[in-house]
Amino acid sequence: MAAHGADAGGRVTITEIARRAGVSVPTVSRVVNGRSDVSPRTRARVEELLRRHGYRKRPTASPSRAALLDLVFNDLDSPWAVEIVRGVEEAAHGAGVGTVVSAIHGRSGDAREWLRNLRARASDGVVLVTSALEPVLHEELRILGVPIVVVDPAGSTALDVPTIGAANWSGGLAATEHLLALGHRRIGLIAGPPRLLCSRARLDGYRAALEGSGTAVDASLVVPGDFRPESGFAGCNTLLDLPEPPTAVFAASDQMALGAIEALRRRGLRVPEDMSVVGFDDLPEVRWSAPPLTTVRQPLADMGELAVRTVLRLARDEPPDSPRVELGTELVVRASTAVPAKRG
Amino acid sequence: MAAHGADAGGRVTITEIARRAGVSVPTVSRVVNGRSDVSPRTRARVEELLRRHGYRKRPTASPSRAALLDLVFNDLDSPWAVEIVRGVEEAAHGAGVGTVVSAIHGRSGDAREWLRNLRARASDGVVLVTSALEPVLHEELRILGVPIVVVDPAGSTALDVPTIGAANWSGGLAATEHLLALGHRRIGLIAGPPRLLCSRARLDGYRAALEGSGTAVDASLVVPGDFRPESGFAGCNTLLDLPEPPTAVFAASDQMALGAIEALRRRGLRVPEDMSVVGFDDLPEVRWSAPPLTTVRQPLADMGELAVRTVLRLARDEPPDSPRVELGTELVVRASTAVPAKRG
Repeated sequence: MAAHGADAGGRVTITEIARRAGVSVPTVSRVVNGRSDVSPRTRARVEELLRRHGYRKRPTASPSRAALLDLVFNDLDSPWAVEIVRGVEEAAHGAGVGTVVSAIHGRSGDAREWLRNLRARASDGVVLVTSALEPVLHEELRILGVPIVVVDPAGSTALDVPTIGAANWSGGLAATEHLLALGHRRIGLIAGPPRLLCSRARLDGYRAALEGSGTAVDASLVVPGDFRPESGFAGCNTLLDLPEPPTAVFAASDQMALGAIEALRRRGLRVPEDMSVVGFDDLPEVRWSAPPLTTVRQPLADMGELAVRTVLRLARDEPPDSPRVELGTELVVRASTAVPAKRG
Repeated sequence: MAAHGADAGGRVTITEIARRAGVSVPTVSRVVNGRSDVSPRTRARVEELLRRHGYRKRPTASPSRAALLDLVFNDLDSPWAVEIVRGVEEAAHGAGVGTVVSAIHGRSGDAREWLRNLRARASDGVVLVTSALEPVLHEELRILGVPIVVVDPAGSTALDVPTIGAANWSGGLAATEHLLALGHRRIGLIAGPPRLLCSRARLDGYRAALEGSGTAVDASLVVPGDFRPESGFAGCNTLLDLPEPPTAVFAASDQMALGAIEALRRRGLRVPEDMSVVGFDDLPEVRWSAPPLTTVRQPLADMGELAVRTVLRLARDEPPDSPRVELGTELVVRASTAVPAKRG
């Protein structure tokens, strides 16, 4: 077991130096890399600590070394996952780095075993998707001195690691504004799990669009979901059973949108003639749903790619370009949305 | 560079011993592992060669070692791929082995770089999907002494490595028999690329079912596809434009089935009322296509799992249970098939 503040090779980490100097990690990194944008006083204090603790820069991955990074999911059972794997593998391969893919199923036993193996194979960095780890394991990773980047952060932004997400609020806004522009006024939302930041941001984007157009937010039109198709199916049925059902549904994931379309089909209702449906993600498969889905494109592969670039920067003790990045989302209009049906 | 017939550590490989003794690899393996089912004469010849070449058994992966296996695709752009990743990761994780996922995009430059990295990180085994490598690279892997298993072999079965496929012929038979049992007699087939073994087997299963029921095979009802949705869309349109279109379509992949359903939707035709559609794969998403797809389940995750077990056996110099395995396929009946529509 490595001592606190030292990495697997017994070296003190830059994070530990930053903590002792009372400055940020990027500041220490600037000193280590000889940058000029640090005050002389801070530089002196950091350099003293670096000397005292015998800090040595992590060796830059060289082509002769078998570099590896770890990509960790909770589960691999969503088409969502393969998009991120694709982006990470491509960027890592381009940098001559192998990608070790793991799923820890939210089980701490699996996570601990993964952590043991990670140490044994001397991984150069970890990309965590939706922060699959408990805080205690985050801390263990930090002690190992392995750089971490979180893609699609699940909860608090207080994590002491760079995060890469998507512009979820803007996406929720764009989806809802699209339906408003078509003339819809009663717009249902099948929301994601409220414990996830991305769900809350999409919901707030939906509300902001309605408020921006002077449309009252009707709480009965917001139903819960868990991003899986089953919950989209159930949520859409709940909306259809309202005394005054909506004329359009925004599902906060593509998979829920597919479930909603199936609920409509079973009642003999057509999309978009009887009901418009918008999704969120733009998974490859929804180009071929029946009908092809209007959705908000989340750049999952790009998020994976940026995560690799960031984690490799950290491995070279360079600071990330920004500790909090949100990549843009984009509305993709296909065949599942239209002007509202006239009600008889 | 390792010498021919020696592995990365300069040890002679079991494959090389087998070649020199003029026996199979499993036979040498039986001798190495002290099994009794080898003739005394063969045993003597093999033992002499083992001694002469100073053969040492590969060390069994121990928990303290950071074991890795490589999972190699041509491309990661299909939902098909994630199913295999899931099965491989789960089995490998269970064995304490990390899974390095790579896509080589059919480019020999990518493949060579992957091979260089594989050597540097001392991978314990390779699972190749649809045999992503050119023969020359297969030979280089063989020289490195890294065990290989091919999942879903693309072409010739003459490969000198164990292969794990699905019962494609039986699946094609079951899909077509299901449509015949519903009363369909004009059944279209959107076939896969003829250079792939799995495509040819599915086509032959389709023909065998028709012949078994005394239904003539009409060549105009078989149209080409490439497993992608676009080709299912185009193929279905070709079938619909025939003077006498079929009443049912068997698409040799789920993605082509989704393309076919969209072609039908665009013409205002309903599935299954106006046309039955059967797919092949049972990807998770087709449970939520509109309508949910009747399809042939290919046990992709199980195939990945068995590949891991086999490659780890080979890494311990044990022979595979069988060098050619086909896992069973199974018809899953959902809502996209029904009795034929009455024609006016």
